[in-house]
Amino acid sequence: MGFSSQQIRSTITSGGQLELSLATVDISDPGADEVVVRIEASPINPSDLGLLFGPADMKTASASGSSDEPVINAEIPPKLLGLIAGRADQSLPVGNEGAGVVVAAGDSEAAQALLGKIVSVIGGAMYSQFRLMKTGQCLLLPEGTTPADGASWFVNPLTALGMVETMRLEGHSALVHTAAASNLGQMLNKLCIQDGIDLVNIVRRPEHADLLRGMGAKHVVDSSAETFEDDLTAALSVTGATIAFDATGGGKLASQILMCMEAAQNANAKEYSRDGSTTHKQVYIYGGLERSPTVLNRNFGMAWGLGGWLLMQFLEKIGAEDVQKLRSRVAAEIKTTFASHYTKEVSLAEALQLDEIAVYGKQATGQKYLINPNKAS
Amino acid sequence: MGFSSQQIRSTITSGGQLELSLATVDISDPGADEVVVRIEASPINPSDLGLLFGPADMKTASASGSSDEPVINAEIPPKLLGLIAGRADQSLPVGNEGAGVVVAAGDSEAAQALLGKIVSVIGGAMYSQFRLMKTGQCLLLPEGTTPADGASWFVNPLTALGMVETMRLEGHSALVHTAAASNLGQMLNKLCIQDGIDLVNIVRRPEHADLLRGMGAKHVVDSSAETFEDDLTAALSVTGATIAFDATGGGKLASQILMCMEAAQNANAKEYSRDGSTTHKQVYIYGGLERSPTVLNRNFGMAWGLGGWLLMQFLEKIGAEDVQKLRSRVAAEIKTTFASHYTKEVSLAEALQLDEIAVYGKQATGQKYLINPNKAS
Repeated sequence: MGFSSQQIRSTITSGGQLELSLATVDISDPGADEVVVRIEASPINPSDLGLLFGPADMKTASASGSSDEPVINAEIPPKLLGLIAGRADQSLPVGNEGAGVVVAAGDSEAAQALLGKIVSVIGGAMYSQFRLMKTGQCLLLPEGTTPADGASWFVNPLTALGMVETMRLEGHSALVHTAAASNLGQMLNKLCIQDGIDLVNIVRRPEHADLLRGMGAKHVVDSSAETFEDDLTAALSVTGATIAFDATGGGKLASQILMCMEAAQNANAKEYSRDGSTTHKQVYIYGGLERSPTVLNRNFGMAWGLGGWLLMQFLEKIGAEDVQKLRSRVAAEIKTTFASHYTKEVSLAEALQLDEIAVYGKQATGQKYLINPNKAS
Repeated sequence: MGFSSQQIRSTITSGGQLELSLATVDISDPGADEVVVRIEASPINPSDLGLLFGPADMKTASASGSSDEPVINAEIPPKLLGLIAGRADQSLPVGNEGAGVVVAAGDSEAAQALLGKIVSVIGGAMYSQFRLMKTGQCLLLPEGTTPADGASWFVNPLTALGMVETMRLEGHSALVHTAAASNLGQMLNKLCIQDGIDLVNIVRRPEHADLLRGMGAKHVVDSSAETFEDDLTAALSVTGATIAFDATGGGKLASQILMCMEAAQNANAKEYSRDGSTTHKQVYIYGGLERSPTVLNRNFGMAWGLGGWLLMQFLEKIGAEDVQKLRSRVAAEIKTTFASHYTKEVSLAEALQLDEIAVYGKQATGQKYLINPNKAS
């Protein structure tokens, strides 16, 4: 038998054309330790947009095809063509994570135990109607959990947990987060309150500060305020935070955070050191909301580090056993600490409409789309 | 009895005036485990200039006093006054390291054993005629070594060794160095040849490339060449270097190094990864020859780090036993691998002449001054 499955594809030609479209693939019957999952919910995360759009200028996007089989085209700016060499002319499926119902299972006990159950899955190509998965890639959700509840089970929850674990592993006792009103930021805020960890939330607008304070956040500073650097230094003095996770990447924010950390450390220093505080100050860039170059003024002594932080590399570093502990915690708290909220549910074809792309493509705070590949149209 | 010792002092007033002058201090008699060293050679390192000049604009420098008791004044730019809060209005002695003859010793066996011997010393205030030191701060030099041979025994040799050790400790197998024609750079080049380690030397002028090649350097790239990025990528492909030590700090050099490391890694990659290579690429900034902001284009994937690197923090990290091993190696190879060459020897008073400051203050490659506080005038 087998299943026929529609899925979203992204292709960038070596000539610099992005094409988004739907393709149909056949799903083979599950092997002994495999199951077929009917995907009913898969979020559009910022990390999915990188694969979906590449470096295309979405202001040039145009639509063709039909409403059932839409096609989107857009241009890659010529100077960014170097970035796509590795994926040129390949039709790539998209979608990091999702959740759905197991509709077919192999002969193994583990596979049979999942039949008819709702599971969360990870492994790419989740913007598909059906996915063949190893049982080890499935997380069985507690009774009473819907696919929409379990769709965002991996990227944001494990990133939030990974930030807190990184803080601990590297010897810090409090942390800073930027773009803190994002879905991930709200989740990190809940997690830190739950675990009694001091978190300094940096937001870009007064209304985002209000939103987080309404959710119980104690330390919120607004980078659009004139008093930003003083406010941040004060929050860093109180919390002693010396590690930050920055979703924006570009501009002066990382430099400002390091400078304010240094000022907060020096405020309590007993004697002059011309090389600054010896306390290590660390900023990890984990996103690229701001594409401009990162500019560091280096007015923060010599004990500092800046680097990229990637969830998958972090999970590889801590190892399978510790990852399993984090996954189990996510399953147990999927409707509380790690709950996500969506502004809209769309079908595969609806996700490839220009007006929808204009909304979710902006990664605006508070906007989070859910794709249901099996949504009745 | 005791000794009377002239020394160089640097004061920055809270109003923003730098004053360099000579002061005379009395040296007390040595305790049981102490010796008095008559300093005969102390280098002017880039790391000394930070304490000597602070953030003063030396283009505003003026001279007064007499030729025996010179005084230099210069202005701190008002916007940099925040940097000197910790040292304001304090008269600070200068000079990290040096060498000389033990002219008085305490009663202990260790102290008596050093009497009349030539020793290298570390501990600040080396631009002084005499220094009271603990025996543990003295490194006995092999027979036939002069104070001038042993003057630069700590900062540059241990920095070069520290870079190679850091490379090993962090799992890299080859390294990159910028401003590579400096005294330190030449030393690192000799050390790497000696130890069979691949070193990519980045210089800023064609004649510096020639200089290093003449000293046996295999990989030299010139950042002033139009083909710099291609040349660097090629050298990084051959050597596999994924760690760099940057003396300049400002501008785009760190970003270019990370980009070329990533390109060299991806050249051998088998499949596309939208997050780039998973090999960690690291740049450490250990100097500030270029004061402008550090600008990162972040076109080098996510597995990267940038940070400050400070010799003293590195030595603290590896611990006393390993430091002792490095010190012993320096003593054994002080006239070969770790030999320094000086362009001029000056007295304390001569070091405070405007025309000399104009030369050594520039930190120009190939210029290295030696102060002999007991030079006959």
